[in-house]
Amino acid sequence: MRILVLHGPNLNLLGTREVSIYGDQTLADIDAHLAKVARELGAEVECFQSNHEGALIDAIHAARGKTDGLLLNPGALTHTSIALRDAIAGVQIPAVEVHLSNIHAREPFRHTSYLAPMCVGQISGFGARSYELALRGLVELLRERASKS
Amino acid sequence: MRILVLHGPNLNLLGTREVSIYGDQTLADIDAHLAKVARELGAEVECFQSNHEGALIDAIHAARGKTDGLLLNPGALTHTSIALRDAIAGVQIPAVEVHLSNIHAREPFRHTSYLAPMCVGQISGFGARSYELALRGLVELLRERASKS
Amino acid sequence: MRILVLHGPNLNLLGTREVSIYGDQTLADIDAHLAKVARELGAEVECFQSNHEGALIDAIHAARGKTDGLLLNPGALTHTSIALRDAIAGVQIPAVEVHLSNIHAREPFRHTSYLAPMCVGQISGFGARSYELALRGLVELLRERASKS
Amino acid sequence: MRILVLHGPNLNLLGTREVSIYGDQTLADIDAHLAKVARELGAEVECFQSNHEGALIDAIHAARGKTDGLLLNPGALTHTSIALRDAIAGVQIPAVEVHLSNIHAREPFRHTSYLAPMCVGQISGFGARSYELALRGLVELLRERASKS
Amino acid sequence: MRILVLHGPNLNLLGTREVSIYGDQTLADIDAHLAKVARELGAEVECFQSNHEGALIDAIHAARGKTDGLLLNPGALTHTSIALRDAIAGVQIPAVEVHLSNIHAREPFRHTSYLAPMCVGQISGFGARSYELALRGLVELLRERASKS
Amino acid sequence: MRILVLHGPNLNLLGTREVSIYGDQTLADIDAHLAKVARELGAEVECFQSNHEGALIDAIHAARGKTDGLLLNPGALTHTSIALRDAIAGVQIPAVEVHLSNIHAREPFRHTSYLAPMCVGQISGFGARSYELALRGLVELLRERASKS
Amino acid sequence: MRILVLHGPNLNLLGTREVSIYGDQTLADIDAHLAKVARELGAEVECFQSNHEGALIDAIHAARGKTDGLLLNPGALTHTSIALRDAIAGVQIPAVEVHLSNIHAREPFRHTSYLAPMCVGQISGFGARSYELALRGLVELLRERASKS
Amino acid sequence: MRILVLHGPNLNLLGTREVSIYGDQTLADIDAHLAKVARELGAEVECFQSNHEGALIDAIHAARGKTDGLLLNPGALTHTSIALRDAIAGVQIPAVEVHLSNIHAREPFRHTSYLAPMCVGQISGFGARSYELALRGLVELLRERASKS
Amino acid sequence: MRILVLHGPNLNLLGTREVSIYGDQTLADIDAHLAKVARELGAEVECFQSNHEGALIDAIHAARGKTDGLLLNPGALTHTSIALRDAIAGVQIPAVEVHLSNIHAREPFRHTSYLAPMCVGQISGFGARSYELALRGLVELLRERASKS
Amino acid sequence: MRILVLHGPNLNLLGTREVSIYGDQTLADIDAHLAKVARELGAEVECFQSNHEGALIDAIHAARGKTDGLLLNPGALTHTSIALRDAIAGVQIPAVEVHLSNIHAREPFRHTSYLAPMCVGQISGFGARSYELALRGLVELLRERASKS
Amino acid sequence: MRILVLHGPNLNLLGTREVSIYGDQTLADIDAHLAKVARELGAEVECFQSNHEGALIDAIHAARGKTDGLLLNPGALTHTSIALRDAIAGVQIPAVEVHLSNIHAREPFRHTSYLAPMCVGQISGFGARSYELALRGLVELLRERASKS
Amino acid sequence: MRILVLHGPNLNLLGTREVSIYGDQTLADIDAHLAKVARELGAEVECFQSNHEGALIDAIHAARGKTDGLLLNPGALTHTSIALRDAIAGVQIPAVEVHLSNIHAREPFRHTSYLAPMCVGQISGFGARSYELALRGLVELLRERASKS
Repeated sequence: MRILVLHGPNLNLLGTREVSIYGDQTLADIDAHLAKVARELGAEVECFQSNHEGALIDAIHAARGKTDGLLLNPGALTHTSIALRDAIAGVQIPAVEVHLSNIHAREPFRHTSYLAPMCVGQISGFGARSYELALRGLVELLRERASKS
Repeated sequence: MRILVLHGPNLNLLGTREVSIYGDQTLADIDAHLAKVARELGAEVECFQSNHEGALIDAIHAARGKTDGLLLNPGALTHTSIALRDAIAGVQIPAVEVHLSNIHAREPFRHTSYLAPMCVGQISGFGARSYELALRGLVELLRERASKS
Repeated sequence: MRILVLHGPNLNLLGTREVSIYGDQTLADIDAHLAKVARELGAEVECFQSNHEGALIDAIHAARGKTDGLLLNPGALTHTSIALRDAIAGVQIPAVEVHLSNIHAREPFRHTSYLAPMCVGQISGFGARSYELALRGLVELLRERASKS
Repeated sequence: MRILVLHGPNLNLLGTREVSIYGDQTLADIDAHLAKVARELGAEVECFQSNHEGALIDAIHAARGKTDGLLLNPGALTHTSIALRDAIAGVQIPAVEVHLSNIHAREPFRHTSYLAPMCVGQISGFGARSYELALRGLVELLRERASKS
Repeated sequence: MRILVLHGPNLNLLGTREVSIYGDQTLADIDAHLAKVARELGAEVECFQSNHEGALIDAIHAARGKTDGLLLNPGALTHTSIALRDAIAGVQIPAVEVHLSNIHAREPFRHTSYLAPMCVGQISGFGARSYELALRGLVELLRERASKS
Repeated sequence: MRILVLHGPNLNLLGTREVSIYGDQTLADIDAHLAKVARELGAEVECFQSNHEGALIDAIHAARGKTDGLLLNPGALTHTSIALRDAIAGVQIPAVEVHLSNIHAREPFRHTSYLAPMCVGQISGFGARSYELALRGLVELLRERASKS
Repeated sequence: MRILVLHGPNLNLLGTREVSIYGDQTLADIDAHLAKVARELGAEVECFQSNHEGALIDAIHAARGKTDGLLLNPGALTHTSIALRDAIAGVQIPAVEVHLSNIHAREPFRHTSYLAPMCVGQISGFGARSYELALRGLVELLRERASKS
Repeated sequence: MRILVLHGPNLNLLGTREVSIYGDQTLADIDAHLAKVARELGAEVECFQSNHEGALIDAIHAARGKTDGLLLNPGALTHTSIALRDAIAGVQIPAVEVHLSNIHAREPFRHTSYLAPMCVGQISGFGARSYELALRGLVELLRERASKS
Repeated sequence: MRILVLHGPNLNLLGTREVSIYGDQTLADIDAHLAKVARELGAEVECFQSNHEGALIDAIHAARGKTDGLLLNPGALTHTSIALRDAIAGVQIPAVEVHLSNIHAREPFRHTSYLAPMCVGQISGFGARSYELALRGLVELLRERASKS
Repeated sequence: MRILVLHGPNLNLLGTREVSIYGDQTLADIDAHLAKVARELGAEVECFQSNHEGALIDAIHAARGKTDGLLLNPGALTHTSIALRDAIAGVQIPAVEVHLSNIHAREPFRHTSYLAPMCVGQISGFGARSYELALRGLVELLRERASKS
Repeated sequence: MRILVLHGPNLNLLGTREVSIYGDQTLADIDAHLAKVARELGAEVECFQSNHEGALIDAIHAARGKTDGLLLNPGALTHTSIALRDAIAGVQIPAVEVHLSNIHAREPFRHTSYLAPMCVGQISGFGARSYELALRGLVELLRERASKS
Repeated sequence: MRILVLHGPNLNLLGTREVSIYGDQTLADIDAHLAKVARELGAEVECFQSNHEGALIDAIHAARGKTDGLLLNPGALTHTSIALRDAIAGVQIPAVEVHLSNIHAREPFRHTSYLAPMCVGQISGFGARSYELALRGLVELLRERASKS
């Protein structure tokens, strides 16, 4: 079982910016932790970060036939990118939307998501732990679906 | 570590209504599973369901001093109850908002939450599994905070 | 054929408040008249009033398996309660929404209904007669459906 | 007692279009049934359909002095015609608004009515039966008013 | 100098409906008075009323080459008809919008006009006198323009 | 019969600014013309211009008992001053709102008026002639009311 | 003279939650102080708190014939309960709305009140003192009305 | 293959009004050109213009069983007529919406269409050529559907 | 303890306009009564009314160092003046907003206040008594603050 | 005559995703067909697809002096990219907006276009045929313009 | 070259209020600094502050023929005064809007300006330095225009 | 002191597009002028333009530790990019937003900025001179901050 983890704009700054809000874990730390958890769950993750909406779309397209599930933290693109929404709808790989902070408690323009309606679900507010929870949820869901088909 | 699990209006119908959407697990099944997971995590859960907003507020108030964290599925009250929001703010017990379905993919009036800004975070869309993910996330978060103080 | 008649908040005041607007019939008068009409139609009604949203939801849940149709005057909850809407959707008993006054001719916040989309239809503006018309419509509709299955 | 029944745009298609939604009764069937019910109630109905807003207004004006009540299904004009609203207000004949489908459960632009505030009340969602219920309600109301004056 | 006076839906009821609001002058009275004033001003008026939007548009089209100015009381169509707006823009005959009542003091949906931006100006609130004031204003304006060209 | 004519902010610039839009008449020209027309109508006018909202309110207050009617061109205050509205409502002197340009054909924020609901009516778009039309309308209306009482 | 004092959801937490905002007075302290002030004014108060909207409505209904005035702090229900509004309108007992904090300086959804239009007036922002000011105002008003009838 | 071409309000003015915007082709020119193109494509067109919404609806109804496709330029009714929308939905003849000008570059109230969601598609901005493009698209689409059934 | 009482536009008309709504007390009566109550409370009031927003701002500025508290009835400026809001914020003298009528039960544009967020609180609906209640509340609050510092 | 055809995000998936909606033609098929049609029309097309907004802007800039017209299917960027709008406005090459599906019949956020006001026109809803219709329209329009200059 | 510098309501408090936000420079300091910079640039400034909207308008009118450019900090009037906007449009003296604080980072009602569309441009957020930057920009712009004419 | 100057989409077209609006200076001219002014101020600038949002974010990230201030003209991304906003917030380098044209006088969708709340301030409307004014303002501000720390 292969999971593609996509990190959107500015997430490469993690651990180095606004540490009091986002914690001191770097993106490399998160990716390493996800890899470890994935192995325990009998899965493997590939991680990719980009500040370019187009590069994220390219990555989603390239995942077809090679990936069983998507773990997406679209960052600020969550609220502005219909193109990313269409990409997820187009490849029809089960996806979960992840946010470090509780986006529902921030500025109003961060309360809505163009992508969530195309996803299995959304997890927000647990810091770096949001990723792990999403990974566990996604793997179990994929297992369940596989066992049914 | 004690966790209070609160289920809002209509969740007592689980497993008996709209099974194709919500799955065939009853609320008792979910509560039993949460109790089992909690024990594995070294915690214990108390579960309570009510169709009365006032009864849920009473339960949150009564939890002060006796509960370490709240797991809430406020159901339809998510979108209409400022009183529940104030109750969570008043007792200042860490809370996580849970939804079976992906509320962001449903009617527009279900996209916003009065409670989420007062919570640690929100998990929606994983069916009954949303509860388990939330429980894991909440317990770890409480452990982390305890170890820091 | 059993019909559950539910009256929401403040309807217990009928016949004693604002008589020039709502007429001088009490809720007991209305319930007695509905019982009589029901007998003529070969049906029977059970009537229940509460000022508590939760109690109304409990009553709707309890009606499953025991009631063939719902006659609801949700009063002010018409415009604020998504939980009642979900209750009706959950039990899937055919329901009709009733209003004494013409809600479309009152304040703007009374023009929309959270419940109507989950109901067979809506009758408003005929005073106490709205209930009788709704009862006739509901009984005929249930007969028709029964005859088809 | 004379009742004018007005059917707005597209209602002439009844029974021939979208049968699964609107039923297989034609407008002639409905008019015949209303005539029969009216006779039982000691009243008589005149029925008129037009796709022209102006023709409907002309008919309402012509009804003054010759008609005791109006039964209107304004169709799509419900949501766009202030001129029809003014016509009803101008002739001051008691009117009831009728809809076959539950307009509150359809597209948002069908949830509000320019005419309802000028009517006694509104009945929607009972299919062809909406007309009969409205006729009964209207006749009783006119009787009651007549007996009082 | 020829002026076409157009009266929209329901204005044929003037003098017979809601006399306390609109006064007891009939439309024939108004037309006769306008004819008299026009003669004094060295102009002549032709008057036309219809409850049909299409008939009003036809009349505006037919006025090209035969009419120097338009006096319009579009009634309720003021607020809903873009087609009338386009008709005025299309024939490019100077037009003045007239209202008996002060539309700015009535329901909010009567505060805006689709036609006014295509007109020389708007006069409202002087009862039947609004027409006379508008006629005087329009004739003077046409004289002024004629003297300049 | 005495009429107070009030000109709001920036109207002192008339005839000197944007001549192509507002014409080349100065405010003194308009006032002189109004005085002449008033004399013909057996009335007299007093004219006052100020760029200060407070000074306009003071003038309205001072007019009580000394003035039979108000002719107001509130300029830009039309759209922002609730205080002027309250002043007119407070002194209860019949008032007419006047605009040189057709405010309904300009920026959206000029389409609505706080004052119009407190006035007899509104005339806009006839240039300096708007004042004369309003004066005629107001004097006739006052005469009519006087003759009735 | 008897005054019913009603406290809505979460007010039972007073003095124990967010002390820096709401002060350290408990609800019992406030009730005791109101009783003392009432006695000085020759009146008596009965106090009731509930987190249940339905229970508050029941209490308002029960007050008919036994209470001369209502002092209400509806808490969060201020902004969401049309049913409470209808209850006040139904019993027609003079009511005053009270808030500890200045609701106009808080989140936008706390700026509007469904209940205030049915009340004599509203006092907000004086902490526990808001209650005393409201009690004084209400008692004087009731005295004045009594002396007039 | 028969195509009904419908032209809405004011389109009869084509070639005579605002030539710099709409071009100098008359409606007769357009209809003649469409007839010629249709013949080349092995189809035939019938053309009808009306300024009356009701007449357009009548024409659509009459087309059932006699027409294979609709080419509609609803003019200003595009943005205000739900009745035309319902007519198209009712007869279920494939329809294409056409506009001479680019409605998306004009006033905001011309950016939305009540009819487009019931049509195959929309073509706007190519002047008289919009019709020809739409005719070609519609004929090919009908051929394709015919070949599949 | 010195309190500056500021009355905004049109309040000088009190007791002479709309007596049935605002009562027959003049502003001088209110000021005299406030002076008497102030003396009883060991404070003194200075009163000032103006119809000029600028004059009110000047007065607020001049109060710095000379006044302990502000009692403001901003009249219609409540809803339109950000400059008055900034003046209160700038001088940082504790202020209370007062209204004779219950502004929350009037037109929607009177429901919100630019000033209230900068004030201690707001009292509305008690007629002239609103001032006295506000004075008592303000004096006690200032005493309390003084005793704490 | 050279035409640049630009395809936006996700259009590279054509023929492989959601075939029931978008048809089974690949983007290469469409490009090949366009090339063929272009040759028949005496023109030539260059085609480019990118998921990167910036790359599309670069391509538009590079087209200056080398391209006579633009054929754009901006995909999801239609609704979010002001930068693409500015690019078209900047290079001032005649452009046509194309959509496979009828965007006016999809989610509300797809009903408006930032680009359309800068284009000659818009064609939507004909599937792959939309491109061909647009190409024909654009070529004719360019021919016409060329013949006039 | 003469520049008129206008300061709106509350700016006279500068340097004495909210020093942490606005800095400790008084308005006199700013005016003195501007005079010095102006001299270096070969220009001269006249400075005027008022809390009265009317006085600011008077000053703008008086500047015609005597002033080459306007430097305006309208303070809170930025967001509420259409009259000031009209004054600038009326005198047609080039104007620049200045703000000490970054109004785009403050409350939403401070994000829009009625005046900016009538100005050359807007500078905000540089504290007292905003004035100097605006003066430099305005002087250079006036020089440039002078050299062209 | 090093300043990074970022130019967003379409600014590479400067001097070659819409010269009457934007002037005839190319981006190279502006960059050269900024370099000269920077030298005079004892600073140095690095300039970068891209049509790719992602490339601009990359550049902002890369500036950390190497740049003292940012000068940004985000072009159309001003109004759509939350990701750029987050980038500025993330690196916490003082930034100034610059616009050639007065964005507050253009289309409504250009009146708001996602970036401005994260910047020191905003300068718009001075053409190429906006950059120079911003550079001066930014350098002085950085000097001042440096001298304070």
